[in-house]
Amino acid sequence: MVPQRLTFVTIGARHLRTLHDFYTGWGWKPLPNSSDEITFFDLGGVRLGLWDIESLRDEAAPSEPLPGRGWNGITLAINVATRDEVDTVFDSALEAGATMINRPRDWDWGGRSGYVADPEGTRWEIAWAPMFPVDD
Amino acid sequence: MVPQRLTFVTIGARHLRTLHDFYTGWGWKPLPNSSDEITFFDLGGVRLGLWDIESLRDEAAPSEPLPGRGWNGITLAINVATRDEVDTVFDSALEAGATMINRPRDWDWGGRSGYVADPEGTRWEIAWAPMFPVDD
Repeated sequence: MVPQRLTFVTIGARHLRTLHDFYTGWGWKPLPNSSDEITFFDLGGVRLGLWDIESLRDEAAPSEPLPGRGWNGITLAINVATRDEVDTVFDSALEAGATMINRPRDWDWGGRSGYVADPEGTRWEIAWAPMFPVDD
Repeated sequence: MVPQRLTFVTIGARHLRTLHDFYTGWGWKPLPNSSDEITFFDLGGVRLGLWDIESLRDEAAPSEPLPGRGWNGITLAINVATRDEVDTVFDSALEAGATMINRPRDWDWGGRSGYVADPEGTRWEIAWAPMFPVDD
């Protein structure tokens, strides 16, 4: 059996300092065991790591070239507690330097969300999903 | 401020049924609000979603082509409680159909981990990291 668990998401960074500054610009506090080479954030139990993409490639895809710079096929989400909070958090993310991808809207599945990108294209969905309630 | 929080990771699936069967083959139980179009797993607070990659692209990267099939620049991790558990979980993941990428080894950073891939290339690290203890 494989534990049904996700403890870490690591993003391979082309410019680690740029991504570090971007996420701290969102108000996020790195964990104290971060270093110049790797940044860790606690995102509510699951951790986010930012690490040099060539180093990560050498571990996770040792025979492959670096990925292209387009969308990578994955989205990360920050669910919020109310429909209105989608828009306020979305605006805050943009004000703090995120790239606008898709403005908040109501979707067929019953929730509301919008998408932004970090400076290297990783997608973040700011979402309210009534079937997945969140306590702030 | 942007909440320091990760609530969802969604993987864009080329063949949703294949990925669904792969992860349930790991012993993972879908959430009851899953459907034929989307599969949700609770991974210890953070959720994993599997959704058709073209639908996800239309929301998250509306002007972009689908990504290539190589490594996507991100890794997901399952941290375990002991060094030995890395190897047993790694073997279980392979027996249940994962692709071997990098056998478990001790790394310079003081932990032990190995990497596998799901049928569409998403990387999972099975890791023991003494600085990030896990209770099973």
